[in-house]
Amino acid sequence: MHSASKSWLLLSGFVLFYIIYLLFGALVFSSIERPAEDELRRDTQRLKEAFLNQSCVSAATLELFLSRVLAANKHGVSVLRNSSSRSNWDLASSMFFANTLVTTVGYGHPTPLSDAGKAFSIAYALIGVPFTMLVLTACVQRIMQPLVLAPVGLLQRSGLKPRPATVVHFLLLLLAVVLCCFLAPAAVFSALEASWTFLDSVYFCFISLCTIGLGDFVPAARPGQPYRALYQVAVMVYLFIGLMMMYLLLRTFHKMADVHGLTTFFQLPRCEASLMDDDTEPIVGNDPTPPRPKDRPATKPLDPGSQPSYNSINKG
Amino acid sequence: MHSASKSWLLLSGFVLFYIIYLLFGALVFSSIERPAEDELRRDTQRLKEAFLNQSCVSAATLELFLSRVLAANKHGVSVLRNSSSRSNWDLASSMFFANTLVTTVGYGHPTPLSDAGKAFSIAYALIGVPFTMLVLTACVQRIMQPLVLAPVGLLQRSGLKPRPATVVHFLLLLLAVVLCCFLAPAAVFSALEASWTFLDSVYFCFISLCTIGLGDFVPAARPGQPYRALYQVAVMVYLFIGLMMMYLLLRTFHKMADVHGLTTFFQLPRCEASLMDDDTEPIVGNDPTPPRPKDRPATKPLDPGSQPSYNSINKG
Repeated sequence: MHSASKSWLLLSGFVLFYIIYLLFGALVFSSIERPAEDELRRDTQRLKEAFLNQSCVSAATLELFLSRVLAANKHGVSVLRNSSSRSNWDLASSMFFANTLVTTVGYGHPTPLSDAGKAFSIAYALIGVPFTMLVLTACVQRIMQPLVLAPVGLLQRSGLKPRPATVVHFLLLLLAVVLCCFLAPAAVFSALEASWTFLDSVYFCFISLCTIGLGDFVPAARPGQPYRALYQVAVMVYLFIGLMMMYLLLRTFHKMADVHGLTTFFQLPRCEASLMDDDTEPIVGNDPTPPRPKDRPATKPLDPGSQPSYNSINKG
Repeated sequence: MHSASKSWLLLSGFVLFYIIYLLFGALVFSSIERPAEDELRRDTQRLKEAFLNQSCVSAATLELFLSRVLAANKHGVSVLRNSSSRSNWDLASSMFFANTLVTTVGYGHPTPLSDAGKAFSIAYALIGVPFTMLVLTACVQRIMQPLVLAPVGLLQRSGLKPRPATVVHFLLLLLAVVLCCFLAPAAVFSALEASWTFLDSVYFCFISLCTIGLGDFVPAARPGQPYRALYQVAVMVYLFIGLMMMYLLLRTFHKMADVHGLTTFFQLPRCEASLMDDDTEPIVGNDPTPPRPKDRPATKPLDPGSQPSYNSINKG
């Protein structure tokens, strides 16, 4: 089969499978969550009716009251007595919010209320998100030697062949990350947060370190939390280290996939692509005529070596 | 200065600046949001007192009622009359939730209620997030030619030198992305969502495509939204295309930074690193003795060419 059409077939397969995967998820979530939701809905409705029966307000007045209570709650302002004293925007909480913004976790508790806050969020994230990626990348680059290259070398010296060595190392690293970034912190969270089960805590760690950040579980959000500011700073440090380890894991997996030829199979960019093929291409940086796509070897339609304008300048 | 200590100094500078950036954000958010929050808090408190005065329920009963209302609301179940009929877990909404999970946007409306739902979310995202990254990468890889390589070649043919050509191309691409993925969709959202201003819509697009996903603005969440399922599918398509374009922009920026030597300056991995230096290193894949870090050339302490176990296998 022609390579380009094979490449498009592969992509179509990916997209099709992606849609099927979403549909599958939708069916499972719908069947799991709908009964639980229906029950909660019925309970809430009964509660409201009972409340209306014992009070002397009209349904319309209660409706208006509740709509305003819920609107305030959406912005992190609770009507409940025990939570009315603390602000969501003290220094530690604001820093926690800024941190969830730049790491793209974004729990959404709290969210900016004012237009100025929204506009500043955009500007702040515009600089902060790439900068955080830069800092994380720089950190990961520095821990690659002690946590990836040295252990793989050690495994090879102990008699393993290079390919199995990368697999064994990846599995060990995965185990270490699961233990140190998920299970151990989850145990701490379930001890510190009164209402969180261990599953809730693992779920929180996972949803946070994947930067999904649903926001149904947010640490230090309980009213009257002791050492709240310190706790929030600790969570920030946890998020930073956790994201760094997730990124390290991803890069190690990407490298391992390179070694085993998976990225070539899926025609994806390699982690650190070898551009030795450039030597055979007589393109100079100032040559204004890039080769037409059809001139490229059919077996490597997407090889980075065939990108003249960028790579040829690199060498200049 | 010694290269390794320079590298650590650079990293320390990064981390220090990151902390300062977070503190700066905290100060601004705190000063902007606190007055708005205080006002909302006072309003809500006054509202509650007025409600208590006109009803004949006790403060404790109201407190209990409101705490349960807010707990149900946290799980997406509203007590308000006009929103009680629709489910958050119909097929389209569940698919929308699955989509925000795998793209790591994670608005958090709705969130899974049951333990089974939480456990399935973890398993689903564990496969879905890497798979979505794979699909997005594969798509971006295919649109690099028409949207990046071809235009840069065209700019070079029209007389621009290679380096300015990459800058001009990046700025044009940025402009196109801002127009097509932010301003135009924001105009559509502000027309479709009754309560969203244009700033709200731009803020929603930005927060979504950075995968922050705070969840204070979620499309199709209004009760009685016409064509709700269709609208949700359209938002999913928008998210996918938007994320693809953001990723394309990031890769183009990374390539441009390579060309201008920025990644080398910050000692970061290059977008497509040239490993020509490998030729000079007599390391073979099966050699179980990797070179000690100190043996490496001092000018390139973090060059990918010095990673023997991975790169030497690539060539085998």
